[in-house]
Amino acid sequence: MKLNSKIHHLIEVKQFKDRELLEEIFSLAREMEVADKGGEYGKLALSQTSRRKILATLFYEPSTRTRLSFESAMLRLGGEVISTEDAPSFSSVTKGESLVDTIRVTSSYADVIVLRHYEEGSSKIAAEVSPVPIINAGDGTGQHPTQALLDMYTIQKELGRTDNLEVGLVGDLLYGRTVHSLAYLLAQQKGIKLYFVSPGEIKMPRDVIHYLEEQKVAFEEITDLKGIASRVDLLYVTRIQKERFRNIKDYNRMKRVYVINNEILSLMKKEARIMHPLPRVDEIAVEVDKDPRAAYFRQAANGLYVRMALLKMILG
Amino acid sequence: MKLNSKIHHLIEVKQFKDRELLEEIFSLAREMEVADKGGEYGKLALSQTSRRKILATLFYEPSTRTRLSFESAMLRLGGEVISTEDAPSFSSVTKGESLVDTIRVTSSYADVIVLRHYEEGSSKIAAEVSPVPIINAGDGTGQHPTQALLDMYTIQKELGRTDNLEVGLVGDLLYGRTVHSLAYLLAQQKGIKLYFVSPGEIKMPRDVIHYLEEQKVAFEEITDLKGIASRVDLLYVTRIQKERFRNIKDYNRMKRVYVINNEILSLMKKEARIMHPLPRVDEIAVEVDKDPRAAYFRQAANGLYVRMALLKMILG
Amino acid sequence: MKLNSKIHHLIEVKQFKDRELLEEIFSLAREMEVADKGGEYGKLALSQTSRRKILATLFYEPSTRTRLSFESAMLRLGGEVISTEDAPSFSSVTKGESLVDTIRVTSSYADVIVLRHYEEGSSKIAAEVSPVPIINAGDGTGQHPTQALLDMYTIQKELGRTDNLEVGLVGDLLYGRTVHSLAYLLAQQKGIKLYFVSPGEIKMPRDVIHYLEEQKVAFEEITDLKGIASRVDLLYVTRIQKERFRNIKDYNRMKRVYVINNEILSLMKKEARIMHPLPRVDEIAVEVDKDPRAAYFRQAANGLYVRMALLKMILG
Repeated sequence: MKLNSKIHHLIEVKQFKDRELLEEIFSLAREMEVADKGGEYGKLALSQTSRRKILATLFYEPSTRTRLSFESAMLRLGGEVISTEDAPSFSSVTKGESLVDTIRVTSSYADVIVLRHYEEGSSKIAAEVSPVPIINAGDGTGQHPTQALLDMYTIQKELGRTDNLEVGLVGDLLYGRTVHSLAYLLAQQKGIKLYFVSPGEIKMPRDVIHYLEEQKVAFEEITDLKGIASRVDLLYVTRIQKERFRNIKDYNRMKRVYVINNEILSLMKKEARIMHPLPRVDEIAVEVDKDPRAAYFRQAANGLYVRMALLKMILG
Repeated sequence: MKLNSKIHHLIEVKQFKDRELLEEIFSLAREMEVADKGGEYGKLALSQTSRRKILATLFYEPSTRTRLSFESAMLRLGGEVISTEDAPSFSSVTKGESLVDTIRVTSSYADVIVLRHYEEGSSKIAAEVSPVPIINAGDGTGQHPTQALLDMYTIQKELGRTDNLEVGLVGDLLYGRTVHSLAYLLAQQKGIKLYFVSPGEIKMPRDVIHYLEEQKVAFEEITDLKGIASRVDLLYVTRIQKERFRNIKDYNRMKRVYVINNEILSLMKKEARIMHPLPRVDEIAVEVDKDPRAAYFRQAANGLYVRMALLKMILG
Repeated sequence: MKLNSKIHHLIEVKQFKDRELLEEIFSLAREMEVADKGGEYGKLALSQTSRRKILATLFYEPSTRTRLSFESAMLRLGGEVISTEDAPSFSSVTKGESLVDTIRVTSSYADVIVLRHYEEGSSKIAAEVSPVPIINAGDGTGQHPTQALLDMYTIQKELGRTDNLEVGLVGDLLYGRTVHSLAYLLAQQKGIKLYFVSPGEIKMPRDVIHYLEEQKVAFEEITDLKGIASRVDLLYVTRIQKERFRNIKDYNRMKRVYVINNEILSLMKKEARIMHPLPRVDEIAVEVDKDPRAAYFRQAANGLYVRMALLKMILG
C-alpha cells in the first residue's frame, strides 16, 4: 500500500471521487481512533527514524475549530505545530507580500501547510509553488475538503454504510459550503436520494443541481421538513449564516423556519441520525442533544481522526 | 496515593479546604521543581506508556502570564499544547455558539482544558458538560484557584509555615480576586491574624468579612499601613485596578496611597516577606526588588511548579 | 569547542566581529541543514539527558516570518515553544507592567527568550535583568542580528566566500535596518567594495558612512543601478518602506526607481546573486524568480539553519 503516492496536496473534494481511496482513508481513521484511545503511541507516530515533522497553520480568516483540530491531530501523530491565527496581520502580508511569496517562505519552515483563505482558488495557487504539501482548510465559498471527508466518515460510522441512503440537507443550501461538497461525495455512492430543504432564497446552487442531474442522482427540492422527517436516514442541518444577509429582516424570517426539536425527532426513524457541521445557533434545539440520534458532537470528534489519517497519508 | 481520584475539575478554591490535599499538592510542587531544575525528565513526565497528553487553553479574555505558565508547565511534563489566545474571536463564538457547545467540541481535541472567562460561574457550567477535566484560570470577579494555591505555596516556602502568621493584605481589597481567595485559604489555617489595609472605597467585601467572623478568624480593617508594617510576617500587595474606576480622579487619588518602598521596608521584620500577584505598577517601588524579602518574582516562578503538580494530579 | 561560553545573550551584530566565531556559526548551520535534511534527529537534538528546553517568543510588534523561523528552528532541535504573537496586548503590559518585569516573569517559564520590540535598546535592557538568554529579534530601528548573520551565511554559501566581493546595496538604505548590519559585517571582511544605490532622500545614514571611512572600506554612493549591475557579485535589494513616508507622493515616486527585472539581470554576471530580506513588493519583478541567481528564497530558508545553530550554541 503506497500511501505516499495517493495524496500530496489536498485541495478539493474531487480528489476523493475514487471510492477505494475514500475507504482507505476511513480505515486509517478508524485505526487512528483505536490507537489514540488505546494510547498506542507507536502506531500513531508518523515515523520513528526522522525528526518530528512540523505542520504550519496559515489562516487568513479565523477558524479556531479547524485550526485546533489539525493541530491536535498533528500532535497526536508525534508531530509539531507552528501557527498563525491571523495571517492578514502577518507582517509581510500587510507590507504587500503576495500569497505565493508567503507560501514559498513558510514552506521553508514546515513539512506541510494547512491553508485557510478567504478567496476561492487560493489553495490551488499555493499548491502550484509549494515544495511541501498544501492542505486546503477552506478557501472562501470554495472547497473545504477535510470537512467533506469527516462528514462522509461520520455517515459511514453512524449508519454503517454510505450507499442506499435517503438524506435531507436542511437550511442554508446556497452559501453552505459543506452541503455542496457532501452532495458531491454522496453523488458518487449508490442508491442515494437527496432532499434539499430550504427557503426559496437560499436554495442549492444551479451548478450542483446540474451536476446531480448529469450523474442521475435522485433529488427533490422541497420546503416542508416535516414531510420527509420520517423517511430520511440522515438530516444534515446547517446554520443560516447571518453574515450573508444584507437585510436583517430576511435573516430573522429565515433563521427559525427549520428548527430540529423534539417534535421533529419524534417523527424520525429510530436508527436515523442528525448531523451538523457546527457551530449551531438555534437550528437544533438543545433538547435534541441528549438523543442518541444527535451525532453532531461525535461528528466533530471524528474530524480529529480523519485529519490524523490524512496527515499520515500525506506525510508518509 | 491515588492522586487521580482527588481532583478532576479544578473550579474553586473551596476544593482545597482539606489541609492534607493542600500539603500533597505542595509536596508534589517541590518534587516538580527539584526534578525540573535537575533535568530529571523521567520524574516529570506524565506517563511513558501512552501518547503525549494535550492541554487546550481557551481564553475568553487575555491573561498571557497565566497562559504561558500553564503552557510551560504542560510542556515540562512532556505534554503538548493547543492554544486560543482570544476565544471571543473564536470563529464559532462570533457566530453565536454557546460556551457549552465550544467546550464539547474542544474536549474532543484535548485531554484537559484551561478556561479563562469573563463571566463568574463559567467554569462550573463548562465542567458540567465536559468529558475532560476543566481547570478554571479565572472567571470574571469569581475564582482563580491556581493563583490562590501558588500564593499559599509561596507562603509555605518563604516563611516555612502557613499557621501562626500575621498577614497584611494591602491595596484593592474590593475587586482584587486574589485577596479574597487568599483570605479564604488562610482562614483554614491556625493562629492567623489578618489586617485589611485599603482606602474605604475599596474595602474587603462583606461576604468575605462575614465568612471570617463565622470561622472566628482574627482580623482588623485599617487604613494605616505604617502602623502594622513592623508586626506582619507578610505583606500581600495588590494593584489598584485603573479599569475599575469610572472617575479617573478617584483612581489617581487612591493609586499612591499605599506604596511599598525602602521606608516601609525599613520598618519590616528581617524574616518578613512581600508578595504581589503581579503585574505591579507603582504600588511597589523598584528599589524594593533587590531586597531578599521581595518574594514576588519567586512567587511567579512558583506558579509554574504548582501548575505542574496540579496537571500531574489531574492527568494522572 | 566550548560553544556555551561564546554566546549567551544575542543582542547586537558587534558580537560577531570575531571572524572565527562567524565561521563556527556557519559551520554549525551547515551541519544543522545536513542533519535536518537527512533526518538525523540525534545530531539535531539539543540534549538527550535533560528535559526538552522551552523557547518563549515575546513579540511587541508582529513579525510572523521571524517568529515562525525561530519556532521551527527550536522544534527541529527537539525543543518546545511558548508564544506571544502580540505582546502589547499582553494583559500585564496593558495594565502598565514594565518590560523589565515582563522579562523577569517570562524568564521563569522559558529557557531562552526571543524578543522583538519597537524600541531601540530594548534587548539590552532585557538582557540586564534576565537570568535566561535573550535573543534580539529586532528592536525598532536598531539591531536584528540574526538577520545579519543569515545574510552573511547566504553570501558564504552562494558565492563561496565573504572576502573580495563587490556588493550593491539597493533601495531604502536610510530605514533598512538589514543593510546597516550587513555593511557592518562586510566591513570586517577583506577586499570589499560597496555601492550604495538609493534615491538621495533615503541614503545610507552618516554614522554607517563614518564607520566605513574609519575602517577604510571602499564604497561609493550612487544613484545609477545599471552602471554597476555588470560589476557586482551581489545585489542586496530592500523594499522601500511605505510606512516611513508621510507623503504618499514621495513613496510613489521612489518605489519604482530601482526594480530588478530581466533587463537588469541580463547585465549581471552569470555567477552573481540577488538577495532580499523579504517581503518584497515590486522591487524585484516576479520574472526574476526563476533565474538561478535569484537567491532570496534560499536566503529565507537559510535563516532556519542559522537560527538552529545559534540556539544550539546558546542552549548548549
